[in-house]
Amino acid sequence: MIFDLDGTLVDSVYQHVLAWHEALQEAGIELSVWRIHRRIGMSGGLFTRALLRETGRELDRALLARLQERHTAAYKTRVGEVRPLPGARRLLARLSELGCAYAIATSGRIESAGPAIAKLGVPDGVPIVTRDLVPHAKPDPDLFLEAVRQLGCAVEDAFVVGDSVWDMLAARRARTLGIGVLSGGYGTDELEQAGAYRVYEDPADLLAHLDEIGVRAERDDQD
Amino acid sequence: MIFDLDGTLVDSVYQHVLAWHEALQEAGIELSVWRIHRRIGMSGGLFTRALLRETGRELDRALLARLQERHTAAYKTRVGEVRPLPGARRLLARLSELGCAYAIATSGRIESAGPAIAKLGVPDGVPIVTRDLVPHAKPDPDLFLEAVRQLGCAVEDAFVVGDSVWDMLAARRARTLGIGVLSGGYGTDELEQAGAYRVYEDPADLLAHLDEIGVRAERDDQD
Repeated sequence: MIFDLDGTLVDSVYQHVLAWHEALQEAGIELSVWRIHRRIGMSGGLFTRALLRETGRELDRALLARLQERHTAAYKTRVGEVRPLPGARRLLARLSELGCAYAIATSGRIESAGPAIAKLGVPDGVPIVTRDLVPHAKPDPDLFLEAVRQLGCAVEDAFVVGDSVWDMLAARRARTLGIGVLSGGYGTDELEQAGAYRVYEDPADLLAHLDEIGVRAERDDQD
Repeated sequence: MIFDLDGTLVDSVYQHVLAWHEALQEAGIELSVWRIHRRIGMSGGLFTRALLRETGRELDRALLARLQERHTAAYKTRVGEVRPLPGARRLLARLSELGCAYAIATSGRIESAGPAIAKLGVPDGVPIVTRDLVPHAKPDPDLFLEAVRQLGCAVEDAFVVGDSVWDMLAARRARTLGIGVLSGGYGTDELEQAGAYRVYEDPADLLAHLDEIGVRAERDDQD
């Protein structure tokens, strides 16, 4: 099982959204907050191209780098409020108990993702795949394919759990099965239309329904 | 035409969401941010009852009052970032030109709503209906019925424009026609399922499609 991070395991989407909003406003770029929300989780390069289109403004490399820096700084001031989502720690522990290997794969860089992952109590040996390790972030499949490689399983056997349509699109492109969670603030239909096989409220709800996606204890393998 | 305020005319939903999150965290109440988001716009009383259910905690009157106060204070620190949504000022000006009367009706109190309304440049004489003026906020129909009364029109002739399912439910209960906007961060299907006749991206998109809801210039009345 491969997990997205922000909005899937930790409750950090809204802080990221307002951090972007602050960074953009400081640069004199006005963009509605909901439009930022709907793009959280996609690669920074695509995010800024979408900005280009929606603001009709030229964004040069220097400005892009400054926006990225300002976002990182603005997010840092909010990261203290960020908590694991309900059930996230219990879900990961349960997967370990069941012998179901898992990884975390995020479009963020390790600098932003590190503090959030630390709150999850993930044991050593769990693959953590960040933007730093692959050529392209979501919705390209690279992050999930690298996670599959590190897990040593076949893509057809992998599930991707994510809160955004970019996760679902990347999951399809990697030929894995996408599972949605509402905890990032998208609606059910948006995730289903993007290819989610099932949509759960949050990690606690997914944990309560692991049977629906065929996760079983190793000792039940003959079922 | 009757407009909701937060998420419909001004880009303030996400600031309200994180202000509630901060107020709740200070009181030791952990609630996922997306669950707060999905309740913005409903009456404070119902909001806190929903909290009761989801946190399994008793909330006494003193705590409720403190939460409300802390939310107001936390929102004030963020209100500087709040802007009118794209097209909001142009839409209201266009309605005035067309001779189409409009009102603003919000579940908020005048203390929070006032600064946001000031940014819209609403002329004197436009009815502003806040929580202070009616027994119950949304999804009860009281706010919209009071707006209709002040506008002096029949409920059957009134449109309600809002970003949340609470607006759509209150619109139905008032026997007005609900129109959704995505600018508060809900998805299209959530608004349509709650009864929206049409869903537009934001006020600019609604302005570009006024013909679809039958708004015409007074001089075209014979059409």
